[in-house]
Amino acid sequence: MNSFSFYNPTQIVFGAGSLSKLSLHIPKNQPILLMYGGGSIKQNGIYQQVINALNGHQYIEFSGVEPNPTYENLMQAVELCRQNRIGFILAVGGGSVIDGAKFVAAAVHYTNDPWEILETQGRHIKTVIPFGVVLTLPATGSEMNSGSVISRKSSQEKRFFSHRQAFPQFSILDPNVTASLPTKQIANGIVDAYVHVLEQYVVSSNETSPIQDGFAETLLKTLYRVGPLLMKNPEQTDLSEEWMWASTLALNGLIGSGVPQDWSTHMIGHELTALFDINHARTLAIILPGVWQVMFEQKQKKLAQYGRTVLHLEGTEQEVAEQAIELTEQFFHSMGILTRIDDYSEKCYLVWDIPKRFKERNWMLGELQNIDHLKVEEILKLRL
Amino acid sequence: MNSFSFYNPTQIVFGAGSLSKLSLHIPKNQPILLMYGGGSIKQNGIYQQVINALNGHQYIEFSGVEPNPTYENLMQAVELCRQNRIGFILAVGGGSVIDGAKFVAAAVHYTNDPWEILETQGRHIKTVIPFGVVLTLPATGSEMNSGSVISRKSSQEKRFFSHRQAFPQFSILDPNVTASLPTKQIANGIVDAYVHVLEQYVVSSNETSPIQDGFAETLLKTLYRVGPLLMKNPEQTDLSEEWMWASTLALNGLIGSGVPQDWSTHMIGHELTALFDINHARTLAIILPGVWQVMFEQKQKKLAQYGRTVLHLEGTEQEVAEQAIELTEQFFHSMGILTRIDDYSEKCYLVWDIPKRFKERNWMLGELQNIDHLKVEEILKLRL
Repeated sequence: MNSFSFYNPTQIVFGAGSLSKLSLHIPKNQPILLMYGGGSIKQNGIYQQVINALNGHQYIEFSGVEPNPTYENLMQAVELCRQNRIGFILAVGGGSVIDGAKFVAAAVHYTNDPWEILETQGRHIKTVIPFGVVLTLPATGSEMNSGSVISRKSSQEKRFFSHRQAFPQFSILDPNVTASLPTKQIANGIVDAYVHVLEQYVVSSNETSPIQDGFAETLLKTLYRVGPLLMKNPEQTDLSEEWMWASTLALNGLIGSGVPQDWSTHMIGHELTALFDINHARTLAIILPGVWQVMFEQKQKKLAQYGRTVLHLEGTEQEVAEQAIELTEQFFHSMGILTRIDDYSEKCYLVWDIPKRFKERNWMLGELQNIDHLKVEEILKLRL
Repeated sequence: MNSFSFYNPTQIVFGAGSLSKLSLHIPKNQPILLMYGGGSIKQNGIYQQVINALNGHQYIEFSGVEPNPTYENLMQAVELCRQNRIGFILAVGGGSVIDGAKFVAAAVHYTNDPWEILETQGRHIKTVIPFGVVLTLPATGSEMNSGSVISRKSSQEKRFFSHRQAFPQFSILDPNVTASLPTKQIANGIVDAYVHVLEQYVVSSNETSPIQDGFAETLLKTLYRVGPLLMKNPEQTDLSEEWMWASTLALNGLIGSGVPQDWSTHMIGHELTALFDINHARTLAIILPGVWQVMFEQKQKKLAQYGRTVLHLEGTEQEVAEQAIELTEQFFHSMGILTRIDDYSEKCYLVWDIPKRFKERNWMLGELQNIDHLKVEEILKLRL
């Protein structure tokens, strides 16, 4: 195990019906900004429950946070906060709304142009306004971590920041809220969380860390089992519970503590979203098998471990590792997710801009920082 | 899964050599109380490293915190804090020192007699002085939770309290510090953590929670494998790492979230310590098999799951469950831990005071609150 620091002060309020406890957690005597997305919460009753909880509080609303939230859009919320001396943000939504709220919370008191937060990965943040979360789509884990991914329309970029103060103060995880989700979003959520775990687990290092491995395998087994069942029974609360808790634990820092991580699938995937507007989870499903194929040699051992423990495969290390890649792609297909770039766009030739960007930025990816722009090109070639 | 609230703001600083980072975490401009135990830290070099980290700080020392820390002893530290306007406590030790520090931190500003904290399980605490930890013996998990167990000599009682503010601000988990521990303490540490996991896992409920189960099984497998190896190679850092991290995760609230728990072994064990001064971990090893035998019917299913996944047993549910009890007791023996009351005392007849006490207090134990004083008597009979 490598050395690590683990810190996660978010209070989780978990369980069917826990949304009814929201009012207990909202601070009093603070002007509040209520942030949410496209308004689906108005159809499924969540909005009304939140408004009830805000009864007696001074609050204003900011709706319309987009999937892949943009700097341009969020800066309007920042202005709103400044004008209204907002002291607390309540984010009601999935990863996009939560990530957006984190950016707004960090930007309000930022003295320079807040885009700098993304350019410096949050290093110069001084104050983050406190915020809380009502999670409506389990997927990104943003409800229990301090990271945020924000896009900039003008430059078609997608960047990341994190900060010690950028943990939600609380997150309400009420499995009842997922009952009305379309299956497409369930599929995205399951696959997003599944790939999060894999990127902290299928690495090249020989440094064993059986605890983190065992935790990761538990989450993978859970999502692999629950995913297809949920597609057929989206209203089954016990399945939503497992999905929700597994997604949160997939990216709250725990399973990644002290072990190498490979976020190359995310990094390349972000570029696919920026170029083609493909949903985040789907970009991961497209890219991951390519990363594994191109980096097969250094990941073979861990791929085989994954194949044996999670997918119950048998055979030699190489056989199991190869089958694990295939079976993972089949799992994505079984969730209705297509895994080729040309399934999503007719302008596939645009992808060659991606390795170019990585070359310009001098980015090296992967747990050993040995995935250069040429390897990125190879990966993309395999995934057209 | 049941509803739950999970909150754990302790910062973990983990890894071989992490003790060298201590000075970064100690607050400046606060008079500090340094608490430790019998002075073994002066032999193994830890004390000197801590003193170096305190260089430039205003601090006083309180040494001699006992195993099973007592109210009587700790009240002297409380007085010291009050006289010296202590603003931060640094606990250097194992569970006893950390539990003691929690009590002192909660008692300093307590207006009534602080024993009331134990009598009311911490319900009326208003302020807890912030404190940090340098862990020297992985076992109790106190380094990452908000609970504390304190004894009162005068009444031979052992009581528990917890409070939201009673989490350590930070805990330094440096596996190097365990290299000089006597094997007896390693055995106690492993068995203590192992039983902590079992008490949150071997329960009667049919409510499945595969995530918590998988995490618990991972920790059990780790401790079961690492324990006997560490007894032979106490200086092997990779083993200490696993021991340390598993012990912390065993009782930081995570694996117990949303699942039934059965702390009857602890409750009965505490009485054995109070009566016979048997080390805490050893009392657990004595009592646990008895609890499982007396409550066999309602625990059989989970015992079998434990037997299959952790101990690799095969057979019918009943066979595997029975063998799991035997093998667990053998595991304790393999760690050099005796598991009968008369291995520790010639005054076994005193145990009959325990069910009497439980009857007087009207205590019902176990995950279903169905272990009454008569069942406690049965359990003790089996463990003489």
